[in-house]
Amino acid sequence: MSENSPLPRGFRAASAIARVKPKNTTKPDLALLVADEAGPAHALFTRNELVGAHVHVCREYLARSGGKVRAVLVNAGNANCATGQQGIDDAKLISADVARRVGCPEEQVLYMSTGVIGARLPVDRIQAALPGLVDGLAGDGLGAFSRAIMTTDTFPKARSVEGAGFRTSGTAKGAGMIHPDMATMLGFLLTDAAGLGAPAEVLRRVADRSFHRVTIDGDTSPNDTLLLWSSGKGAVAPVEPLEQALTDIAQGLSRMIARDGEGATRLVTVQVRGARTEAEAAHVGRVIGTSPLVKTAVHGLDPNWGRILAAAGRAGVPVDVARARVWIGASDVYAGGKPHPENEAAAHEHMKSNEEVILGVDLATGSASADVWTCDYSAEYVSINADYRS
Amino acid sequence: MSENSPLPRGFRAASAIARVKPKNTTKPDLALLVADEAGPAHALFTRNELVGAHVHVCREYLARSGGKVRAVLVNAGNANCATGQQGIDDAKLISADVARRVGCPEEQVLYMSTGVIGARLPVDRIQAALPGLVDGLAGDGLGAFSRAIMTTDTFPKARSVEGAGFRTSGTAKGAGMIHPDMATMLGFLLTDAAGLGAPAEVLRRVADRSFHRVTIDGDTSPNDTLLLWSSGKGAVAPVEPLEQALTDIAQGLSRMIARDGEGATRLVTVQVRGARTEAEAAHVGRVIGTSPLVKTAVHGLDPNWGRILAAAGRAGVPVDVARARVWIGASDVYAGGKPHPENEAAAHEHMKSNEEVILGVDLATGSASADVWTCDYSAEYVSINADYRS
Repeated sequence: MSENSPLPRGFRAASAIARVKPKNTTKPDLALLVADEAGPAHALFTRNELVGAHVHVCREYLARSGGKVRAVLVNAGNANCATGQQGIDDAKLISADVARRVGCPEEQVLYMSTGVIGARLPVDRIQAALPGLVDGLAGDGLGAFSRAIMTTDTFPKARSVEGAGFRTSGTAKGAGMIHPDMATMLGFLLTDAAGLGAPAEVLRRVADRSFHRVTIDGDTSPNDTLLLWSSGKGAVAPVEPLEQALTDIAQGLSRMIARDGEGATRLVTVQVRGARTEAEAAHVGRVIGTSPLVKTAVHGLDPNWGRILAAAGRAGVPVDVARARVWIGASDVYAGGKPHPENEAAAHEHMKSNEEVILGVDLATGSASADVWTCDYSAEYVSINADYRS
Repeated sequence: MSENSPLPRGFRAASAIARVKPKNTTKPDLALLVADEAGPAHALFTRNELVGAHVHVCREYLARSGGKVRAVLVNAGNANCATGQQGIDDAKLISADVARRVGCPEEQVLYMSTGVIGARLPVDRIQAALPGLVDGLAGDGLGAFSRAIMTTDTFPKARSVEGAGFRTSGTAKGAGMIHPDMATMLGFLLTDAAGLGAPAEVLRRVADRSFHRVTIDGDTSPNDTLLLWSSGKGAVAPVEPLEQALTDIAQGLSRMIARDGEGATRLVTVQVRGARTEAEAAHVGRVIGTSPLVKTAVHGLDPNWGRILAAAGRAGVPVDVARARVWIGASDVYAGGKPHPENEAAAHEHMKSNEEVILGVDLATGSASADVWTCDYSAEYVSINADYRS
């Protein structure tokens, strides 16, 4: 559960300084992952109508390769988005260069970009960095890769789990979907488990319980991409323990993303209970977790159950207000149809003393539950996003 | 178009200091509107699952009275929400008192509350203020009423239009739906036009083109109420000019609400063009107008077309990105599938020099359009909402 997580067998990684951001010559901004042989992979892409060039190219390549991937290249600092045909040509040129150096068909290379929208990739500088990148490939860990894919992240995000004969690792970048022109969330789930069946279904279920439950401010990015990729070099893993390992890693990364939200001072876990279905519970959690009023209240350490209940109430899902319950930490602040002001001091203390704040609501309409992760809203969030480009 | 707007014939208004907020003894916080005779009315209420006591009682009374209203009482400072049966009993007690003093059945009195959630109404203090309130009724204007319904509003919101033999006025309170525990938007549309047919349909259409196109942060309140009410003392008005007058007033009030958003420094008009339907255009406008990234960019005077286009792209509505256009003020900042950085200086100047900022997007998929009103997001918004209760 650290940036020194070991790589699953059959993968190697490397990073380089390519000066994608020309002014920053000290920070790695290009990262490469290579499998010893092409392995099965599946990707989920943003549902935004505006998509970065890499989404077009990766979709095409995954279709052409039959879902086999040999190498993944990632740059930070430039999203190659809203760059038209030029952006697609640039992405393919660089992918082909990687393919030549690694020794595979171009469609087995996935090249992903995140960063500023609307600027052309510095193709020459990226190509110049490729030989050193390939030479530097090593199997020791995800650390260098995790750091090189960061844009405004304040810490690298990686996590690893050892299963029964297989190893699974993950890394992600992004402070959620909170800044689409830093275009934004990339996630990589790597495993050496062999016999990975139906990765599309597995990935969808894993994402539904992890990355789809992180919300910073409801904004999604044109470049969001989540990849599940297996080298097949470990033991054959039954679907259940593998899916559990992937879910553990993805949830851990999701919590790190929420914790690293721009300007955030608290990780907020929204616990929704007593819903009719898990999907409804997750939806209510996202509405609460996106509410600027809830998020500013957390920032102000204000145990404001009214905002939590009102946010739940506008989610379009039934709430039995007379039987509903709202808690903060371990303290019920609304129950039995009325507020419990006598518990607000303890709730305030929970918010003040913990890096992770628990906000809970029981809708009293069923028995399904879901957790959603978000962060508080600070004045610094506004400054960061008001001042970013200008 | 001012707080001195005259009242339509057949209406009288008054305000009083009832100390609903016990600490504030200088600000009027109770307001009364009375019609000479009961007139036809229709109300739209919040769609939140959590609703204030007044929503229950007003719905019941409008059904019992067959949509006839003689008096409207409003208090600021206390929402009478999450107060259970006690809150409903309190609201009915006060309504009955007004009915006795005005001389009408209790179900012809609508009593609305906004303010803090979860506290009991100061029934005694409100009842003590009623005699003076009824004595003070006068037909000179909406000014006193407009001021007494304010909670965190920084200016009163009223507007009036003279039609062909009829007069229509409106007033509203609230800085949008941005603070549900100040529970929040009340709107009143008064007319003396006679022969008001199908007010439910008229009100729905008017609201769809006005109050439903204001978005501050997507939060809706448990107490939101919009009332259309006619005294019938003027000329018989054909539906079309009356609906136009109501729409003008409601749009004017909507713009005032957006302009008065907490911490706002700019009114933002989002112009969506080239959509397939007006409903889709309004939906895209609301997504753009709710995006914290767009709103912080406006605050930073950053002509950030990428955030506007990405917000439009995640609205779930088709966008032809290659033919779409984004403008700020009169300057195209994205067109023909690519950014136009040469126009960003003019766009920045527009944002810097105007109290009303125009953000436009043409989706290039049809010919329908809609405008949506919002405001920028400032660090002050965060402070106001983080510090409000604690």
